[in-house]
Amino acid sequence: MFRKELKVLDCTIRDGGLINNYQFSLDFVKAVWRATCDAGVDIVELGKKLTESDEYTRDKYGAWNFCDDDDLRRVIDSHECEKPPLVAVMYDVGRVDIHKLQPRDQSPIDMVRIACYVHQIDAGLELVKCCKDLGYLTTMNIMAASAAIETELVEGLQEVDQTTELDYLYLVDSFGAFYSEQVTYYLKLYQKYAPSKELGFHAHNNQQLAFSNTQQAIIDGVNLLDATINGIGRGAGNCNLELLLNFLKNPKFHVRPIYKVIQEDFVPLREQIEWGFNDIYGISGHLNQHPRDGMKVRGNPELKDKCYDFYLESLRLEGGD
Amino acid sequence: MFRKELKVLDCTIRDGGLINNYQFSLDFVKAVWRATCDAGVDIVELGKKLTESDEYTRDKYGAWNFCDDDDLRRVIDSHECEKPPLVAVMYDVGRVDIHKLQPRDQSPIDMVRIACYVHQIDAGLELVKCCKDLGYLTTMNIMAASAAIETELVEGLQEVDQTTELDYLYLVDSFGAFYSEQVTYYLKLYQKYAPSKELGFHAHNNQQLAFSNTQQAIIDGVNLLDATINGIGRGAGNCNLELLLNFLKNPKFHVRPIYKVIQEDFVPLREQIEWGFNDIYGISGHLNQHPRDGMKVRGNPELKDKCYDFYLESLRLEGGD
Repeated sequence: MFRKELKVLDCTIRDGGLINNYQFSLDFVKAVWRATCDAGVDIVELGKKLTESDEYTRDKYGAWNFCDDDDLRRVIDSHECEKPPLVAVMYDVGRVDIHKLQPRDQSPIDMVRIACYVHQIDAGLELVKCCKDLGYLTTMNIMAASAAIETELVEGLQEVDQTTELDYLYLVDSFGAFYSEQVTYYLKLYQKYAPSKELGFHAHNNQQLAFSNTQQAIIDGVNLLDATINGIGRGAGNCNLELLLNFLKNPKFHVRPIYKVIQEDFVPLREQIEWGFNDIYGISGHLNQHPRDGMKVRGNPELKDKCYDFYLESLRLEGGD
Repeated sequence: MFRKELKVLDCTIRDGGLINNYQFSLDFVKAVWRATCDAGVDIVELGKKLTESDEYTRDKYGAWNFCDDDDLRRVIDSHECEKPPLVAVMYDVGRVDIHKLQPRDQSPIDMVRIACYVHQIDAGLELVKCCKDLGYLTTMNIMAASAAIETELVEGLQEVDQTTELDYLYLVDSFGAFYSEQVTYYLKLYQKYAPSKELGFHAHNNQQLAFSNTQQAIIDGVNLLDATINGIGRGAGNCNLELLLNFLKNPKFHVRPIYKVIQEDFVPLREQIEWGFNDIYGISGHLNQHPRDGMKVRGNPELKDKCYDFYLESLRLEGGD
């Protein structure tokens, strides 16, 4: 599959940080930056940009939950690169202080991605406008679309469509619940109600479909694709960047540096933290459930492989009025 | 996805046996039989049917490489089931003695699946005719279609089309090399040159696409689908039966017994033998290579996670004239 317009966004540090509370070492983040630079990835998301407070401290929540300009510069300046990727950070609606954001020309950040639920779209669009005023590229990542009431989603999409300050609108399969037919269905909905927007897609691998659903999104016209090195990410993880680059066949991409950083930095990390498909996440994806219960089970050595018990319990909980 | 005609064939024991030399205990095979019966699976393949010889002994090659009638009966009779699945075995062209096969009405076997490479299609069709004469349902599983020269494949398909004794023709992605677009391409080829045949599909999970490619095969008109419990199978394994049953939504299928047997019998087995996606198989699938080199690497504790070295070595080997 080759299409000139296709862009790849690596969110290894941002989505991977969800499973280790953003406690990546500076060296690890530099290694990811180097690999994604050399691989020709278009955009690299280096973390979230929360506001520090007495409760939310860097020590407890990790440097990459805050993405201070100095930290970002230490990473970016660590590797010479002819055409470096754009740098993205994620804003969580309700947990950011827009007044702390410098204008783009004084910041190492190029793109701000606004993550919100359907009921937060209005608040998210306010942030989009502020970020655009400061010169940033903007995305809106509407989370958990699979669990949204469709009329509310449609209303939100129409507002999104009116917001000229937004560059990309994301379909996000937060629960890893989509089959390819749902990817197509939702993308058609997004195209119908937000026709002015370029689309992005962010998958999760609960049912071993993150990579194939990303392919489906390409077929359906999406031009901005999220992926992570080795599929790292919350729960079952994301679309594997290395598989995606193999698929895209665009000569601007090089997969070799990705396999190198996997061998050198991700294999040791896999000894410390877990991500990727397993039976538990397969069930939560199938049942369109938030991965938090599955993650709790996977964190308990007594329960982590008891997929039958988890299945029965999930059905029982689903059985309520 | 619901379509009345869709049938599921579980090949847990047959494809799984490739990674433990068919050394499953009788209790394990009974557990798989019980689970697939209770799950409503249409056909269960319990092994290969090679011919015993001084070289090929049951002790060395495992009972399920031979599928003696007595062994099969011990399994089948171990569980009461209102509508038991049909029983299949696999024939490898060149390694069987057709004269040892009893007529179907004197045997526990219902279906014989003939596995062959493109250059063996003629020999395979001879076996198909013999099996049909004895009353069996027959399939031809043309292996490694992704590595075949297309003109030879087309010639073979035309012969297949003329063979009225054949019930099902299989597209087999032996190397896990297909994206969904190749699944569609090959299925169109099969439909064009063997239009009289009902089609089957057998996937491998090298690129995390076994399940999604099986869905694509359904979309493209395939009605017989291979899968294995927990995705067990050679190298990266197969399409996970539990994911497939979740997807099919046909009320004749029940996924619960599959999750039960995973928890009780497959989780302990995973401590002993390995299957499923990893970086090494991702590379061999992408490069359309036989999994044997990858399996060798995965069997070596020093090399098993050195995906970068494996990638470079695979490219080097590919680089020859």
